[in-house]
Amino acid sequence: MKRSYAIVGTGGVGGYFGGRLALAGHDVRFLLHSDFEYVREHGLSVKSHSGDFALPSVQAYSRVEDIGPVDVVVVCLKTTSEGLLSTMLPPLLKPTSLVILIQNGIGVEAEVERLVPGARLVAGLAFICSAKVGPGKIDHQFYGNINLAPYNLSPDDLTVLDEVAEEFRASGVPIKVMDYALARWKKAVWNMPFNGLSVLLRCQTDTLVAEPAVNLVRDLMREVVHAAQVCGAPDLKESFIDAMIESTRQMPPYSPSMRLDYDFHRPMEIEYLYRRPISMARAAGCEMAKMEMIEQALSTIEAAKL
Amino acid sequence: MKRSYAIVGTGGVGGYFGGRLALAGHDVRFLLHSDFEYVREHGLSVKSHSGDFALPSVQAYSRVEDIGPVDVVVVCLKTTSEGLLSTMLPPLLKPTSLVILIQNGIGVEAEVERLVPGARLVAGLAFICSAKVGPGKIDHQFYGNINLAPYNLSPDDLTVLDEVAEEFRASGVPIKVMDYALARWKKAVWNMPFNGLSVLLRCQTDTLVAEPAVNLVRDLMREVVHAAQVCGAPDLKESFIDAMIESTRQMPPYSPSMRLDYDFHRPMEIEYLYRRPISMARAAGCEMAKMEMIEQALSTIEAAKL
Repeated sequence: MKRSYAIVGTGGVGGYFGGRLALAGHDVRFLLHSDFEYVREHGLSVKSHSGDFALPSVQAYSRVEDIGPVDVVVVCLKTTSEGLLSTMLPPLLKPTSLVILIQNGIGVEAEVERLVPGARLVAGLAFICSAKVGPGKIDHQFYGNINLAPYNLSPDDLTVLDEVAEEFRASGVPIKVMDYALARWKKAVWNMPFNGLSVLLRCQTDTLVAEPAVNLVRDLMREVVHAAQVCGAPDLKESFIDAMIESTRQMPPYSPSMRLDYDFHRPMEIEYLYRRPISMARAAGCEMAKMEMIEQALSTIEAAKL
Repeated sequence: MKRSYAIVGTGGVGGYFGGRLALAGHDVRFLLHSDFEYVREHGLSVKSHSGDFALPSVQAYSRVEDIGPVDVVVVCLKTTSEGLLSTMLPPLLKPTSLVILIQNGIGVEAEVERLVPGARLVAGLAFICSAKVGPGKIDHQFYGNINLAPYNLSPDDLTVLDEVAEEFRASGVPIKVMDYALARWKKAVWNMPFNGLSVLLRCQTDTLVAEPAVNLVRDLMREVVHAAQVCGAPDLKESFIDAMIESTRQMPPYSPSMRLDYDFHRPMEIEYLYRRPISMARAAGCEMAKMEMIEQALSTIEAAKL
């Protein structure tokens, strides 16, 4: 049996990973919105630091009903559209379908479970710098691996997940399968400081890993580590902070996704990047004071259009 | 005996209060820097919500040595120039001179005591919106009262301070004399949230007293009140927070002084508005987490010229 994939949201992330799978010959169906006509006609082209490639013809769709049920749904939507999944997911699901949520933040699986009861969910943590730079045009700048973390899978689902992971790997996408809470919170250690501060301070990662900002970044990361430890990821250690700072220092100056959202006047992912983890940590007895201040400042920026 | 005054720093604050004293006929000697020539020739003119006035001729000086010892030194310099006082104050002092420090922040008296041992210091908390809008031109927008708070005065000094306060009052400047720590920390309840946030969020007071920012402002004020309670001002109560929010809501949209410093590329008063009170509170066992984050963000803005 050839496995079918639906890519829900063909932007920098969905376009790149879906493109890799399609390039390797998999059945990949791309859901598109504004770029649908263009991509149906011209396909996708990917400029990538791990090798450029073009897909002159791809399976392009503008409606989930036309895609139909698939084996694997890869959700690459911003969490600011999370509510849409209650209507978008069901037409794509067979009883055995896996849903990989390549989305930022904490609490997205719980929300999708609420919206689509029974869906078999996998967290997808993408470590990638990639952006859509025009219709059907993806610019993949660096990194490009995924951590998959099963959220509510049965033993049978887990076997399927391993096969899916192997298909990604064989397509040129490094994949690790790991513990759910650990995976989500590890990503949050990077996401929570860098996304918010890059908006608040109108700067890029290079400024944030330099003195004096790096002290604030460390404080914020420490809050995330402490929250993680009481929220199901006791194995996340403070030593991870140095690794994150160091790997960010190796990157060229980078604008995190929330900074791009801010710059392009798109809604920011404040809910899942900040509000949910902060309230989850609080419920577990852990205050994230500085993180809460970022949330309050971002909410002000959004409300007052600053 | 006619009491002599020196105004050290003839900007929006020094120009207004010194101008009121001079208008009432007192011996007031103004220290000027860039505006010295202009003011010597044309005097001061003050546009004021409590009545415009002009002083076509004032005692203008460019060097403290030319002013000589006076009875009362009123320091209206930014704390970013605090170090200058070690050389500027001594030529102005008689053994009995009072030094009123109309400056923002916490810890300025301790610093001046270190720089000029033996100086008789009074904290001056100005509640005023006033700016220098051109050489010798002051625009006084609203408020205009001072709280004076003796720092290290003898009983004889206190008697003199009461007379000085009376001379201010008779000149049209409402004055209260009050407890030192309470006076400084009360001002900090307003200063610490509004100054930093107006820079960080590039907004004015009106945005900060509206939802959702006002929740952050309240959190920050609560940190100041708790710090005050362990730093010598146990009588400062949380109920003061509502009063501060309410009175700020009565003001027209306003840019606090740090926002003006930021906009005009002047150094910001981070040291005395944030670092000193935060470390004083920490030494007393009280963490000001969100306030520390403001300090870290402002330090980054200053260091990276954001």
